[in-house]
Amino acid sequence: MTAIVNVFLKEGVLDPQGKATHHALNSLDFEGIKEVRIGKQIIVTLETQDKEKAEKEVKAMCETLLANTVIEEYTIEIA
Amino acid sequence: MTAIVNVFLKEGVLDPQGKATHHALNSLDFEGIKEVRIGKQIIVTLETQDKEKAEKEVKAMCETLLANTVIEEYTIEIA
Repeated sequence: MTAIVNVFLKEGVLDPQGKATHHALNSLDFEGIKEVRIGKQIIVTLETQDKEKAEKEVKAMCETLLANTVIEEYTIEIA
Repeated sequence: MTAIVNVFLKEGVLDPQGKATHHALNSLDFEGIKEVRIGKQIIVTLETQDKEKAEKEVKAMCETLLANTVIEEYTIEIA
């Protein structure tokens, strides 16, 4: 099974990487951009074929390593 | 409009960040992981309400700044 994990900074947490990208896009003459936010997408390929087990496992991975839950949120999609 | 851009390394390009995460997960006793690959997710909020225009604009951003098309692929989703 493949799990797609998206990790984002929580609302209100400053995103300097997004801000820098926003400025860079502006200096390349892209206009009409309100905001740019940058997150990580982590694709974990698991051996198990059990969807529930995969979801539980990946959630544990997020809590312990993949996301910093103090400042980040995550979503898990199992495919 | 909001554009969600996913940027990944192309198949066959070595992903050291993913490999390091894979090893870290193994040393935390997570088993049965085949592969970990890490990409970026960039969320661009645009002022325009024109879906086609937004898509065209974001594609140009990807080609010039957001993705390195030599080693990376990207997908664009307009919401």
